[in-house]
Amino acid sequence: MVIAPRPTISELSGLYESGAVSPVEVVEETVRRIKRLDPALNSFVTVAEEHALERARQAAADISAGRKRGPLHGIPYAAKDLLDTRGIRTTVGSKIMADNVPDRDAAVIEKLDLAGAILIGKTGLHEWAYGITSTNPHFGPVRNPWDPERIPGGSSGGSASALAAGLCAFSLGSDTGGSIRIPAAFCGIAGLKPTFGRISRRGAFPLGHSLDTLGPFGLCVQDTLLAYLAMAGHDPRDPASSKQAVDAPALGREPRLEGTVIGVPRGFYFEGLAPDVESAMSAALRVFEELGANLREVELPGVELANSLHRLILLAEATSVHRSRLVRRRADFGEDVRLLLDQGRFVLATDYLDAQRARREFCRSCETALSEVDALVAPAIPIPTARVGELEIEVDGQIENVRLATTRNIRALNLTGLPVLSVPCGFHRDGMPIGLQIVGRRYREDRILSIGHAYEQATTWHTQLPAMVREPPSGTDPTGP
Amino acid sequence: MVIAPRPTISELSGLYESGAVSPVEVVEETVRRIKRLDPALNSFVTVAEEHALERARQAAADISAGRKRGPLHGIPYAAKDLLDTRGIRTTVGSKIMADNVPDRDAAVIEKLDLAGAILIGKTGLHEWAYGITSTNPHFGPVRNPWDPERIPGGSSGGSASALAAGLCAFSLGSDTGGSIRIPAAFCGIAGLKPTFGRISRRGAFPLGHSLDTLGPFGLCVQDTLLAYLAMAGHDPRDPASSKQAVDAPALGREPRLEGTVIGVPRGFYFEGLAPDVESAMSAALRVFEELGANLREVELPGVELANSLHRLILLAEATSVHRSRLVRRRADFGEDVRLLLDQGRFVLATDYLDAQRARREFCRSCETALSEVDALVAPAIPIPTARVGELEIEVDGQIENVRLATTRNIRALNLTGLPVLSVPCGFHRDGMPIGLQIVGRRYREDRILSIGHAYEQATTWHTQLPAMVREPPSGTDPTGP
Repeated sequence: MVIAPRPTISELSGLYESGAVSPVEVVEETVRRIKRLDPALNSFVTVAEEHALERARQAAADISAGRKRGPLHGIPYAAKDLLDTRGIRTTVGSKIMADNVPDRDAAVIEKLDLAGAILIGKTGLHEWAYGITSTNPHFGPVRNPWDPERIPGGSSGGSASALAAGLCAFSLGSDTGGSIRIPAAFCGIAGLKPTFGRISRRGAFPLGHSLDTLGPFGLCVQDTLLAYLAMAGHDPRDPASSKQAVDAPALGREPRLEGTVIGVPRGFYFEGLAPDVESAMSAALRVFEELGANLREVELPGVELANSLHRLILLAEATSVHRSRLVRRRADFGEDVRLLLDQGRFVLATDYLDAQRARREFCRSCETALSEVDALVAPAIPIPTARVGELEIEVDGQIENVRLATTRNIRALNLTGLPVLSVPCGFHRDGMPIGLQIVGRRYREDRILSIGHAYEQATTWHTQLPAMVREPPSGTDPTGP
Repeated sequence: MVIAPRPTISELSGLYESGAVSPVEVVEETVRRIKRLDPALNSFVTVAEEHALERARQAAADISAGRKRGPLHGIPYAAKDLLDTRGIRTTVGSKIMADNVPDRDAAVIEKLDLAGAILIGKTGLHEWAYGITSTNPHFGPVRNPWDPERIPGGSSGGSASALAAGLCAFSLGSDTGGSIRIPAAFCGIAGLKPTFGRISRRGAFPLGHSLDTLGPFGLCVQDTLLAYLAMAGHDPRDPASSKQAVDAPALGREPRLEGTVIGVPRGFYFEGLAPDVESAMSAALRVFEELGANLREVELPGVELANSLHRLILLAEATSVHRSRLVRRRADFGEDVRLLLDQGRFVLATDYLDAQRARREFCRSCETALSEVDALVAPAIPIPTARVGELEIEVDGQIENVRLATTRNIRALNLTGLPVLSVPCGFHRDGMPIGLQIVGRRYREDRILSIGHAYEQATTWHTQLPAMVREPPSGTDPTGP
């Protein structure tokens, strides 16, 4: 079999181009891998095998007839199960929606369909993309391919886990409070939270309307870019959608960063780091310098308060989404989501509005900082990867709340709507991946993708594979049936 | 004296052009009129006599040297006293701000300054542009030049009263819940609430951040257009400012409306009209038909609920503006504003967010209705003009709450952000003016100004003058000192 155990979009696209492999073989092999590996991961809620095979046959026919649409044609991808998919159930991680089969595709699914990409399944997430623990009470926990005892991070955990395990070639998530960047960091892949308004949210189940942002996961920055370009752009049917033009960077072969100024927000973002994260970050900053970038320390006034603002805004917005459902179907909500939704009932409108006003001030802080630099670089997650079900974790002798520490460096950036790319930047001593965030100016996804690509090419952390991908569980036949 | 008792911008501009009159004479005469008439009206909080005379001398020099900047050069105007004016106190109708002297001009004041217009004074308003009654507890009630026993409407009552009395040639207001359209209707002048985001709000004291809209009053539609064009346009320093291009209509001499489709929202907007309003509206609709327009009945689903949505959104937003001040300076708020601000403290964030969501649905209703017509026409105020201090009024044997009935046909349109022009459309049997609203598509101020101009030219209601303007109070010398 010429297909790598975890092929990138470019590899597959090249194989299609040369005729060495057809999308049908890739989809069949991907389905075999899902059957082999996913029982240990639970990354899929629904595998769309028939749908994918039919689409693969069509793609194979089109490509062999010289009608290849672009780099995503025939490429299998997975979508977080809060994106509407016509004829394929969409549960939003909730028992209440367990039998929900939309009759229309979400805007991003439509766009990827036009690009020829093949939806292979819907991936697991926190209940309603919310919740305090990583364990979905209705569909069970998603697990991390680097160690199935560990969490993949959430709420887009299924999309990150499936991609890191090679069960798709790219995947889609949503990021309201870190739900793309956290699982990207925990699963050792790239994840992009684009600028707020960049990607249409039509047909995506809401969580926090002033925060929700869709985005792609990729095995490398190039793949993330390809998926992003297929998803981005104005949609008149999404009132929050931006008309700003989408720029595509050219990601070179031996990229350098001469002339690039990278801001380092010392203070808050570099406090309380686990020792392995600290050394990974120091090494990463040296790499940026070796690539020719200038580092500059920057301040982000207001960052200490920003996570609290995010918490209050999201409490209110999420409860507004679910309030009437919570009255009608109270018993069908998991306990931790119910607790958060109940808290949201008591937020006052003036508190919410004051938080939105303070948020605008924090945005100005960040935009001021970014006016002097091309991007900011900061650790994604300060702590090691928790075990499934674990609510507290010991870091350097201190007990940390897993949820708070995981989201500590993440959530404030959702307030800003700025684009953020997370890329792998090393490993903890226990073998789990570490992630680095690159924050860009508004609508400058092109810059952070270029910077992330340069870093990735210099470090090649993204080429490391989880053991279960390198060595499939014993008792299974790696060549398939 | 060649200056008419209530000159329009065009008349003054023509006099300047020909050299028949200088801006100094006009400003001097305007100040004399203010001294003569304003004691009965209380439309000004502050008269900027020295400032205006200095500016007038500069304008006179520039114009006579052939450097006339445009139609507003040398034209005296008045600004609602919530717009920051450098070196001129800005009270926002509050005792707390009685000595507030800004060190910068609001964006609109800057723009009018560049156009050469001359600020002659700051006009009275409801306390903080809010409040239930029309009586400002700190600066006293503003009165209506058509009958000083009557209210001019609020909250921009001073700007409308001053203009209707000829104490300026145009004026500025703000409209959060009708505060331009209501006083325009009550005072028999034109008032434009432009599209939300059209005019920069920088330097304007806020009331409800998702609703606040600045706009001009004019003695005719042409004057309103000239003031609007000088005020409108993108301001990068106002986050809500739109980048949409501003279109200037050409208002012809004998305008017709062939090919124009005017929507008539029967039902809600035409219910409970006082008999004089009802007959004025019937006559107005006939005029539109005689001008060649096609009338079409339209539905606005959700309009019944919309005033409640507006009330809840504004309660929360206004309290968010004033909350900390209300704690520190409770005794310095008037009783009715305090009551509203206290109510706003108990609005839940979920109620606010649900109202904003329902608001978006109502916006879609209105945009759907407007997709089939060029504009909507509706009565501005269903009831006669109340007396100062009156909280209830008898209409056709029914007792009506003045505030609720006055704002009934007005407030929902603030939710939509659509542009609305109010023009005079006749008189009540008691001699008080009646107003008509023309609602346009988003950013189509040009269309409603054209339609309003055609109606105005056909009816000439705007040429009627209040008795106090025609015949100054006895015992005064109309030719001045």
